[in-house]
Amino acid sequence: MSKSPELSSLVNALVASYRSDPRGHRKDRKFLPSKAEIVEILEIALAVFFPGYYGPQDVTEENVAFHVGSQLVVLREKLSRQVEQCLCHAAESENVRVAGAVGEVDDCSAHATKVASMLLARLPELRTMLLEDMQAAFDGDPAAQSLDEVVLAYPGFLAVTVYRLAHELFEMGVPLMPRIMSEWAHERTGCDIHPGARIGRRFFIDHATGTVVGETSIIGDGVKLYQGVTLGALSHPRDEHGRVIRNVKRHPTVENDVTIYANATVLGGSTVVGEGSLVGGSVFLTRTVPERSRIALKPPELTVRPVRDAREWVLDFDI
Amino acid sequence: MSKSPELSSLVNALVASYRSDPRGHRKDRKFLPSKAEIVEILEIALAVFFPGYYGPQDVTEENVAFHVGSQLVVLREKLSRQVEQCLCHAAESENVRVAGAVGEVDDCSAHATKVASMLLARLPELRTMLLEDMQAAFDGDPAAQSLDEVVLAYPGFLAVTVYRLAHELFEMGVPLMPRIMSEWAHERTGCDIHPGARIGRRFFIDHATGTVVGETSIIGDGVKLYQGVTLGALSHPRDEHGRVIRNVKRHPTVENDVTIYANATVLGGSTVVGEGSLVGGSVFLTRTVPERSRIALKPPELTVRPVRDAREWVLDFDI
Amino acid sequence: MSKSPELSSLVNALVASYRSDPRGHRKDRKFLPSKAEIVEILEIALAVFFPGYYGPQDVTEENVAFHVGSQLVVLREKLSRQVEQCLCHAAESENVRVAGAVGEVDDCSAHATKVASMLLARLPELRTMLLEDMQAAFDGDPAAQSLDEVVLAYPGFLAVTVYRLAHELFEMGVPLMPRIMSEWAHERTGCDIHPGARIGRRFFIDHATGTVVGETSIIGDGVKLYQGVTLGALSHPRDEHGRVIRNVKRHPTVENDVTIYANATVLGGSTVVGEGSLVGGSVFLTRTVPERSRIALKPPELTVRPVRDAREWVLDFDI
Repeated sequence: MSKSPELSSLVNALVASYRSDPRGHRKDRKFLPSKAEIVEILEIALAVFFPGYYGPQDVTEENVAFHVGSQLVVLREKLSRQVEQCLCHAAESENVRVAGAVGEVDDCSAHATKVASMLLARLPELRTMLLEDMQAAFDGDPAAQSLDEVVLAYPGFLAVTVYRLAHELFEMGVPLMPRIMSEWAHERTGCDIHPGARIGRRFFIDHATGTVVGETSIIGDGVKLYQGVTLGALSHPRDEHGRVIRNVKRHPTVENDVTIYANATVLGGSTVVGEGSLVGGSVFLTRTVPERSRIALKPPELTVRPVRDAREWVLDFDI
Repeated sequence: MSKSPELSSLVNALVASYRSDPRGHRKDRKFLPSKAEIVEILEIALAVFFPGYYGPQDVTEENVAFHVGSQLVVLREKLSRQVEQCLCHAAESENVRVAGAVGEVDDCSAHATKVASMLLARLPELRTMLLEDMQAAFDGDPAAQSLDEVVLAYPGFLAVTVYRLAHELFEMGVPLMPRIMSEWAHERTGCDIHPGARIGRRFFIDHATGTVVGETSIIGDGVKLYQGVTLGALSHPRDEHGRVIRNVKRHPTVENDVTIYANATVLGGSTVVGEGSLVGGSVFLTRTVPERSRIALKPPELTVRPVRDAREWVLDFDI
Repeated sequence: MSKSPELSSLVNALVASYRSDPRGHRKDRKFLPSKAEIVEILEIALAVFFPGYYGPQDVTEENVAFHVGSQLVVLREKLSRQVEQCLCHAAESENVRVAGAVGEVDDCSAHATKVASMLLARLPELRTMLLEDMQAAFDGDPAAQSLDEVVLAYPGFLAVTVYRLAHELFEMGVPLMPRIMSEWAHERTGCDIHPGARIGRRFFIDHATGTVVGETSIIGDGVKLYQGVTLGALSHPRDEHGRVIRNVKRHPTVENDVTIYANATVLGGSTVVGEGSLVGGSVFLTRTVPERSRIALKPPELTVRPVRDAREWVLDFDI
């Protein structure tokens, strides 16, 4: 079956499609970040943040310095390599786009080493923030039985952990890697926090599925979100050619100690939810509210009518 | 511990339950599609659609024909085998259901070979559509930095890619496989597009978590959905015996160039969202709207009251 | 690169942070449940519940007793070991918390063996309930083509299967394991059913993404939920010190034969949805409704205005 004419002509058609359009393939391009190694980076970081829960389990007072030391060596190596791939990849793509040819990429390697060191130096401070996030999750959920449960079974805490790491790389200008990290967390948790968002301390997202925090959101300290909450854009500004303008604040600001309940939607770059406010479930909010507001749906006007005949109604449930 | 009387009686109880009810086991049945091999089929298709991003990374002008050729050989083999399993499985189940005995299944193999060839022949056209979907994702999201980011980190684009392949198999009448494919994508992306839906070109779903597109939906070109959008059924028609009638149009029609924002719900088989319309976030729509409509929630009546005492209100937040 | 001064001081900073705070690490602690083995437990249970669909595929009348017998031996062994880890882990943590020292843990092993036997003895009854859930899924969804499709491609059915097992362990007082199981299902299905919820027979969740069933929910027989449904808490009662009180009924009661459509939210521990009721999509319900109620959003007041200029409106879509 290997050399049917049918198959040959199909190969030709596909090769022609790669040749005619530079999009959607990487023919003759050298650089690409490896998703697999970026996931390894996340796994090592988790083992450094929470030793014994992730990574080797036999962590003792005697061996912990050895464990964390050897993990950091590997982490720095993998980080340097993948940051280099991301930087070179972007430079190459730029060249391809501008000149139609694969360009030279010089300084990616040196810059990548520097970024890796900078990120490693941030790990202790990130760990401190993550312990506060962990405590906030436990304190905020009556169903939590222990801090261990938060580390082992809270998707919102995993999403926040990955966000804090990805955000550092985003701030350092590393392309692609932060988004690959956040999408890995999104796949596992259903929670999509853009690495560009700026989020304060003691942040907790309960249940987490469907929660979306847009790129230019600003979130204060002590904020708590529930599942299905959207911090989104109200409109996408465009330039005179109709092209979307990037890098404009499009997502809301949520001040300290705000709680936003399940499936609420808050939209717009100039929308501010004032400090200490409570936003009720399913609320749809597109304007600023002052501090200590309590925003709820008016008791919704529901139509309550008796179901006449079970069979009939299940058949014909018109809302 | 291997032969306790307790365990023996438990084995007996379970074996008796398999024997007494044909549901939920596959005892003495020969055919079953392999989820693992169906996932391999998806992965090979991804490598053919987007060489270098998926599959081997060292793709050059010289070796690309070799790469794609060898992948297509394997793809055809795996597709033939799994389509055969799906067809035989359905025939066998039908026989089991009708006659209580395992029936003969003859023509599955020949038909499966034909289906595999037909699907392969569709790959170039599917790839063309997918490049358009990729561009639509980039053009539609100000947070996207490059087309590479769309391929590597946009769950909505992965869901649409899997949908386009699964839909072809659905149209060719292959049972089970399209749904196993769509459920694979659903697990990864949180986005559930039924392979029976009919969807036009340049389709983009941003964030994707929680978006559900029902089996009999019809969607035009240039449509954009956000997370949490449901295109669903309003009722389930039943026959005179109270059994659900399958294969009736139960889901809406969304015409060209419509955008539907986060968590909006559109229901009903006769509901049409007219061309060029915009459906706002959290809108709940069960009737037809003409072309170029702009449908929004009335500025919702929210109760805004001051939070009196932080502690008190966090405790007793009645909506 | 292995021994730079930079890296040494980073190791020191991290080790100091582990030393100064008992949270977020497991230094010098012996017990931890293994997520990987708990997933193996789930996989074996699936093979016992649904032989041929999960686990070995060559199941015949002759070998089925052998297959199920050998799986049960392994299942009992793994269950005993992991339940022991969970019990010892909790006892150790309690000691750590109370005394600041690692305490002796004696009777975990004997108790774990007993729990494993009790769970195994429940498997036949659980399987009977799961066949009813499977049938309810098929009967309740016109898009389902076969019972096989329900087993192979319905995330809601997987979530319910895992819930039924996790709930047994929850009722037996096993810490951590039930939540690790439910979070495994949540990751795969987007559906978060707390193992503490009490759920009757013939339970079906269609599409499943985003559906959250809180810890103290009570659900009758024949209930059907759709994607995005929340059965949640209205408030978190606290004690006089402002600490959240755990183990209070905070989530609703849903009586027999109720259907709750997509993205509806029902909140509050004293809220009861009466038998046979239908709750429409996107309804937000915080009070009790009597049996056979039909609760729907009032036909929502939508603003429908023409889109004046496609470009302009896409640019500036203010809701």
